[in-house]
Amino acid sequence: MSRPQISDLTALDAAGAAQAIRNGEITSEALVRACLDRIAEREDEVQAWAHLDPEAALAQARDMDTVQRSGGAMGPLHGVPIGIKDIFDTADLPTEYGCPIFDAWRPKKDAACVTLLRACGAVILGKTVTTELALLTPARTRNPRNLKHTPGGSSAGSAAAVAAGMVPAALGSQTAGSVIRPASFCGVYGFKPTLGLIPRAGVLMQSHTLDTVGVYGRSVDDLALLADCMTAPERDDAVSYRYEGPRLLETARQTPAQEPRFAFVRTPAWGEADAAMQAAFEGFVGSIDAWVKEIEIGVLANVIEWQRIVQLAENAYYYGRLMRDAPDMLSDGLKARLEAGLEADVQTYIQALASREGATREVARAVTDYDAILTPAATGPAPEGFETTGSPVFNGLWTYLGMPAVSLPLLEADGLPLGVQLVGARRGDAGLLRTARWLAGEVAGKG
Amino acid sequence: MSRPQISDLTALDAAGAAQAIRNGEITSEALVRACLDRIAEREDEVQAWAHLDPEAALAQARDMDTVQRSGGAMGPLHGVPIGIKDIFDTADLPTEYGCPIFDAWRPKKDAACVTLLRACGAVILGKTVTTELALLTPARTRNPRNLKHTPGGSSAGSAAAVAAGMVPAALGSQTAGSVIRPASFCGVYGFKPTLGLIPRAGVLMQSHTLDTVGVYGRSVDDLALLADCMTAPERDDAVSYRYEGPRLLETARQTPAQEPRFAFVRTPAWGEADAAMQAAFEGFVGSIDAWVKEIEIGVLANVIEWQRIVQLAENAYYYGRLMRDAPDMLSDGLKARLEAGLEADVQTYIQALASREGATREVARAVTDYDAILTPAATGPAPEGFETTGSPVFNGLWTYLGMPAVSLPLLEADGLPLGVQLVGARRGDAGLLRTARWLAGEVAGKG
Repeated sequence: MSRPQISDLTALDAAGAAQAIRNGEITSEALVRACLDRIAEREDEVQAWAHLDPEAALAQARDMDTVQRSGGAMGPLHGVPIGIKDIFDTADLPTEYGCPIFDAWRPKKDAACVTLLRACGAVILGKTVTTELALLTPARTRNPRNLKHTPGGSSAGSAAAVAAGMVPAALGSQTAGSVIRPASFCGVYGFKPTLGLIPRAGVLMQSHTLDTVGVYGRSVDDLALLADCMTAPERDDAVSYRYEGPRLLETARQTPAQEPRFAFVRTPAWGEADAAMQAAFEGFVGSIDAWVKEIEIGVLANVIEWQRIVQLAENAYYYGRLMRDAPDMLSDGLKARLEAGLEADVQTYIQALASREGATREVARAVTDYDAILTPAATGPAPEGFETTGSPVFNGLWTYLGMPAVSLPLLEADGLPLGVQLVGARRGDAGLLRTARWLAGEVAGKG
Repeated sequence: MSRPQISDLTALDAAGAAQAIRNGEITSEALVRACLDRIAEREDEVQAWAHLDPEAALAQARDMDTVQRSGGAMGPLHGVPIGIKDIFDTADLPTEYGCPIFDAWRPKKDAACVTLLRACGAVILGKTVTTELALLTPARTRNPRNLKHTPGGSSAGSAAAVAAGMVPAALGSQTAGSVIRPASFCGVYGFKPTLGLIPRAGVLMQSHTLDTVGVYGRSVDDLALLADCMTAPERDDAVSYRYEGPRLLETARQTPAQEPRFAFVRTPAWGEADAAMQAAFEGFVGSIDAWVKEIEIGVLANVIEWQRIVQLAENAYYYGRLMRDAPDMLSDGLKARLEAGLEADVQTYIQALASREGATREVARAVTDYDAILTPAATGPAPEGFETTGSPVFNGLWTYLGMPAVSLPLLEADGLPLGVQLVGARRGDAGLLRTARWLAGEVAGKG
């Protein structure tokens, strides 16, 4: 992307900020201070942060600057502030999971991916607001692009903080649509990698089958850079694997050998989309039609339902204890959801699990001639009001299939951002990010 | 093992037979003919075979001999006859799954592991009797060691055929205790590898979480040799993995660098064992006490229950359709089981699945100082009569944990064989087989 004025530190993307620090153009302390200034300015209205310790963040930044001045080793995120969704354990800040049961809870150690970020030199700026237990009850966070609208959920604070210039990049997580939908609503870049690419140890579990760690940034480069820092296998997690592909950022920055081809897939969710989104998306597809062919994939209607079944049943398994122990501290909506999950039909659940590999192969076969699936990131722009965080119906199916997905802030409708979602092959994260960067850069003039 | 008289071809183990063929001491045709003669002699009373085509088997054998005479490539099982449990698809013989619904069913192609055996030069001798859909309803097969007793189940025919000298080695499968228990009852060597080592494509599925392909033979070498021929990753199976360890047979034949140490684990099943088994097993442990320490592993009581829950619920998923379509063709016992599985509690099932990795780690930590777990293969010798195939309570827990297990025919009780079960670390199949061969050879004088 075009280099912003270095005087406007809050406009830097994470990759650009890392480069500027490395080049000695800016200090980590100056960048963190600029972020804290922006937070001071906008936090009252946006409410993106659950826990913030400005002095501790500045101390981390000064430490990074000292290391740099003394010629010490610098990781790829050296001195760059990162926001952490408040379902990732942090040893130096509370972790409350958006639920009063965990009021002032202090984990003993960082989540594995927070440890990995720190090892790459990141400054942990603070914890961002999550919805209640990363589910559907709206949080207090507002959409920085229009304060009357939801930022989406569940990674509400992370998406809003990046959109408001409070931090260049942040961690989120997705079980249905909790990374991609807020990215679309807030107009930032979002990435839900292949299931298992980033370790889940120390992250609140709501569904071992679906939970996926994701990232937000201000460019495709940011998504690749953060994910690069967190690819580590985890023995204790059955979905985790050792990533042996090329570095994501290096690949993302390559020019594709051939111009990419996109499979436009409306999915069975298309009928739930609003007219403004449909028009904007069809217009976009038309504008790049040389690279696009529309296809249908029959199994996806089932996939949407299977994701719902798995999430509902596993939510009740992981949160059922909370309902027994402290029902008054859960919302009515969540309790109703957990009650339903406790009584889910076992055979339907087994079918949903047992169908996943076959469905993934069917989808893979359907798109074998394409570099990415092109599909909406959400049913429309961010809904007005705060009764709902919007529908994840365009997201849950890719989460269930374990396929990597990116949301690019390329469109608008009704004056609000709208994401273009690209979905890649399982474990094809590097190629997906290269395709996404090509689309953002060449077609839409963004990187 | 000591070389048998070559005149007694039916006493050869598979490894010895392969060597004798390779050396030109015997022909495949002579060996297959000796097996067919033994079958003709004993099949009326043992009833181990579901489908047999003697002329086709002899034709395969002659083809192998022709290849050898013409100097063609010879696989590690060149010319060796193998029995195949009748739940593995075969293109040239019926596959009936022990259920009249599939009367005379002819799959279009071989199961993946049958293809792999053929590629290694094996002669597919015939299909062996399985219990009804590889579950608990006893089959017609009798125990060759005492015809009044069950051979166990569900791989009844494979174990009995190997025990009766009808074939040197055979394929089985285990979801609870269907490989190890019949090996114990019939006095042959049995091996249930790590979950995912051998591909399951083309094998009747009753539980994707538990189903494991296993083998029978007349020595530890046979177990290693057959498994070596079938380690191939399978894209379509979530538990399958690419085996990158050393060849099993080569490792099994090595002398351990140090004398092995065994963790004697009674397991919570001990109380269900009969007195003759307990006495024989304790006597055996006492006889090798220099290498053995008894330990307890707390989680195993739960593991036994989790395996039952998973198998029950998944059985109903895979076989429920049969009950709807053709209830009259299923036994009452099976129908009652499927009815229970259809209504299993979803949260109990999720707990059973979600607990597996943690339980496996707990067991691994408990036995980190040992080369193998030493534990009974069955609750006692083969029960008299044919109302039951015996209890799998000493087996299901290791199947659930995905840990490799071997049964060695080292003991007797009440004049019938009794297996010593060794259990190894997940993916530690090669080391387990080396330890098993050491125990059989050095301590008990068998190889």
